[in-house]
Amino acid sequence: MSTDADFVNAHNPHLDKYVIGVDYGTLSGRALVVRVSDGAELGSAVHEYASAVIERALPATGAKLPPDWALQDPDDYREVLRRAVPEALRVAGVAAQEVVGIGVDFTACTVLPTLKDGTPLCELPEFRDRPHAYVKLWKHHAAQSHADRINALAHERGEPWIGRYGGKISSEWEYAKGLQLLEEDPEIYHRAERWIEATDWITWQLTGTESRNACTAGYKGILQDGARPGAEYLAALNPEFTGFTAKLEYPISQLGERAGGLTKEAAGWTGLPEGIAVSVGNVDAHVTAPAVKAVEPGRMVAIMGTSTCHVVSGPGGGAPADVAGMCGVVDGGIIAGLWGYEAGQSGVGDIFAWFVNGFVGPELHAAAIERGISLHELLTERAAAQAPGEHGLVALDWQSGNRSVLVDHALSGVILGLTLATEPHEVYRALLEATAFGTRVIVEALKAGGVEVVEYIAAGGLTKNSFLMQMYSDVLRCPVSIAGSAQAPALGAAIHAAVAAGAYPDVPAAAHAMGSVIPSAYTPDADRAAAYDLLFAEYLTLHDHFGRGGNDVLHRLREIKAGTQK
Amino acid sequence: MSTDADFVNAHNPHLDKYVIGVDYGTLSGRALVVRVSDGAELGSAVHEYASAVIERALPATGAKLPPDWALQDPDDYREVLRRAVPEALRVAGVAAQEVVGIGVDFTACTVLPTLKDGTPLCELPEFRDRPHAYVKLWKHHAAQSHADRINALAHERGEPWIGRYGGKISSEWEYAKGLQLLEEDPEIYHRAERWIEATDWITWQLTGTESRNACTAGYKGILQDGARPGAEYLAALNPEFTGFTAKLEYPISQLGERAGGLTKEAAGWTGLPEGIAVSVGNVDAHVTAPAVKAVEPGRMVAIMGTSTCHVVSGPGGGAPADVAGMCGVVDGGIIAGLWGYEAGQSGVGDIFAWFVNGFVGPELHAAAIERGISLHELLTERAAAQAPGEHGLVALDWQSGNRSVLVDHALSGVILGLTLATEPHEVYRALLEATAFGTRVIVEALKAGGVEVVEYIAAGGLTKNSFLMQMYSDVLRCPVSIAGSAQAPALGAAIHAAVAAGAYPDVPAAAHAMGSVIPSAYTPDADRAAAYDLLFAEYLTLHDHFGRGGNDVLHRLREIKAGTQK
Repeated sequence: MSTDADFVNAHNPHLDKYVIGVDYGTLSGRALVVRVSDGAELGSAVHEYASAVIERALPATGAKLPPDWALQDPDDYREVLRRAVPEALRVAGVAAQEVVGIGVDFTACTVLPTLKDGTPLCELPEFRDRPHAYVKLWKHHAAQSHADRINALAHERGEPWIGRYGGKISSEWEYAKGLQLLEEDPEIYHRAERWIEATDWITWQLTGTESRNACTAGYKGILQDGARPGAEYLAALNPEFTGFTAKLEYPISQLGERAGGLTKEAAGWTGLPEGIAVSVGNVDAHVTAPAVKAVEPGRMVAIMGTSTCHVVSGPGGGAPADVAGMCGVVDGGIIAGLWGYEAGQSGVGDIFAWFVNGFVGPELHAAAIERGISLHELLTERAAAQAPGEHGLVALDWQSGNRSVLVDHALSGVILGLTLATEPHEVYRALLEATAFGTRVIVEALKAGGVEVVEYIAAGGLTKNSFLMQMYSDVLRCPVSIAGSAQAPALGAAIHAAVAAGAYPDVPAAAHAMGSVIPSAYTPDADRAAAYDLLFAEYLTLHDHFGRGGNDVLHRLREIKAGTQK
Repeated sequence: MSTDADFVNAHNPHLDKYVIGVDYGTLSGRALVVRVSDGAELGSAVHEYASAVIERALPATGAKLPPDWALQDPDDYREVLRRAVPEALRVAGVAAQEVVGIGVDFTACTVLPTLKDGTPLCELPEFRDRPHAYVKLWKHHAAQSHADRINALAHERGEPWIGRYGGKISSEWEYAKGLQLLEEDPEIYHRAERWIEATDWITWQLTGTESRNACTAGYKGILQDGARPGAEYLAALNPEFTGFTAKLEYPISQLGERAGGLTKEAAGWTGLPEGIAVSVGNVDAHVTAPAVKAVEPGRMVAIMGTSTCHVVSGPGGGAPADVAGMCGVVDGGIIAGLWGYEAGQSGVGDIFAWFVNGFVGPELHAAAIERGISLHELLTERAAAQAPGEHGLVALDWQSGNRSVLVDHALSGVILGLTLATEPHEVYRALLEATAFGTRVIVEALKAGGVEVVEYIAAGGLTKNSFLMQMYSDVLRCPVSIAGSAQAPALGAAIHAAVAAGAYPDVPAAAHAMGSVIPSAYTPDADRAAAYDLLFAEYLTLHDHFGRGGNDVLHRLREIKAGTQK
């Protein structure tokens, strides 16, 4: 990229400076100090949220919560700024004056009600005991019935935006959680002047001025082609919900833009210089793309952990490609100017963990302990000793439902080919393979819709399993690159901060200079790829049979289980 | 049964006497002393075969055996007569002079080559080192390629008898093992004047005269409507095989007939009086029918262990009912004068054992140990705490293939409905249910073919699991009776001996007086039966989809595993 190189060589005054990325996870926040010139990670620090995830009762008052709730206390987020940022600087040995920018990324949709000055309602003394005044974490799953109504009505009315979300708005997102708020605690709903993603809220705390980022506005806030669901639609959901969108509306900032300068108060929290650049908010998965240099169309990033989130950009302008079963398609949702496609697999590492924790006999546990390795490692080692297909098994990876491309959480897992000689490491391998086949279905759906995928870049905890990574390369018949940083989201946020500070002209340029990836760490083996093709063909037939109505047994089993069968 | 009662009351001189049943199993033989009047079991003794199952090398010479071989030494069978019979009498406190008859039952098809005087070829000094001279145990599985040719040719030529065996002659049976003998050791084949079931051979040892029983001749020896496979068919298999049938031919005795009187030599072995009645040979599964009084049409007996064998009689005379997928249909195969239908499930208890041994984590093992119960008991207890369908699972019980009604050993097991919340006891229950559903498929096939099934009588090790027995009753919507004797085959053999001794006019009469069953120990619960109907409907759809060509994935997985896929 000659433009990048030119820029880097242009004696940019920021290149010997530093930026800070703050990654807000589910249980803690991490601050990472990064050198602007090359993305070197000089030090980091983690602060665990004092209230963690509030699932049973409000810490302030002991008020009990219903099932499926998951709240957080927003002051825990400020505390990360007060604690982790100075500590990271200390560990890095970097003087605060050398820092030119700060950026954050966050879980999403994590959302809270505030006054118009940004004060969280839960921080008003009169609302300390009101659960609905707190932050609703991404995994708050108590708005399912609201989501169901949102979806049914959207399909009934033929709302154009529903197609951009695979036909389904998640119960985790802004409108479902907002409708729950209205209907369960109208007073809080009406006092909420703003309904804001935590990533935008913490950025507001840094800058003193509200901003809204294109990523969450699109993926979580149903902003498409400059518009949100209309008043008539909202009124049909609930007449009092008509004005909901007003709590969200604000000029949208593109990713990498400067949200503002660090306030004196936030400078006091962090020890950083007042006025330095603060980039607009972002989401952990999406900000991983620049961290691994995936800033051009066709480079898919997969954050592989308990579940997998896939993000890939396609050419910008015009209408997006029509890809069935995406979690979302957003203009500038990953990289400003490009259409951002997001897909997901709802179960990956958690399927492996479920099997290993429950379905492996004591001899293998003992063997792993004796070897001083994890049971995952032992099973992987034994599985790797077999050729593809040697286990005679094929599985469907739907233990946690199917997010893409079927968008059906009532599906469940299937294993075929079991014999009396089948051993646990063989089932384990079949489960690994099933997740790779699930990824291939997503990649093929993107390609069929006209979205190129030429490289698969893996980040997250599962990248440690090299057998799995090689399998993905073989199954996808595509090179697999590996994120160079173990803190890719924080690095991505720091890259955004560098762009906001003016050190680079845009996120792609900054990503090429500061991002880190091991390119083509794994490349497909022709023989294994051919062997996996046979199994994938079986997977696909079963996927369509059980997932597209050939036999709805998996739905009926759920109904039988719930006692709701017809 | 007034006829029985009349007979019992007729001051029959044998009624205060005793008979002995000898049950020849895979690893040992058991002698059981039984009172003629009421079937009371007074004592038994077991003798383990010195050579057990010969699988690796001949004990006499160390000659190595190929894979899948399973031989026995026929003198081990005589040793049971020498050891276990006197010991059983001693334990029973019964004087040998009070014994009026002896009968045996055996595993089948367990077959050996002998001279025309009954001398096993392996007992000729020149053949001690020749594996093919020994007894081939039922589980000798090295004649599969021969069975494949037998079946292919039978279908090609449209042989009428093949339909009586579900379209498939097993590699375990007389013709497959005989063809292997011819082609692998022609000298032994040509020296073999007789090719005889072990049950008939040990009876010959007792009586000094050959006899052949209707049960093995029909089920294992392809004797149908008085004829065996013709010379033209045999010649097409191998010209030298044309005369094979001559090694089998002998007048057929019906079950319960007197084969002869005990020889002086056998009287010396056993201590029993010379000349007492010896009944014709029989097979362990089939002789269980009289032991549990299942001597009329419609009373199905299931011997439930690692696999399940089902035997049920239908009305005699004319042609048998046309039931697809039976293991065999034989005139007088279970009870003289009735058509005997045999079906089977190739995996039952071994599926449960496979899962429990490999796929249950250490916590549950520890919990079972702490409770002092088996892991099977622990899982059953937890499974029983759930309502039918609460696990959300359905499984196909084909881990060891499907014997009836699909007659397809290349099938394999399937589990559907797995979620991250699925626990081992739930999969265990789904596997129990799958075997019950498999039984229901067999029962429904019999009924559809016109064979009545009004009662299910369970024998064998699995009857100890009362949760499983209740499940079978609920799933089958039929009373489940339980064998009253833990040694049902030996009791059945003793009943045959009593008939041969003239103590009763026929096997049904003797069975009603001497057999033992807990009638309707379990009866169906209407609510559970309705709940299981829902799951059975799913099972049946999957059974037909994966078993009858809807999706041949299970066959293809085997081919992929074997590297023979097209």
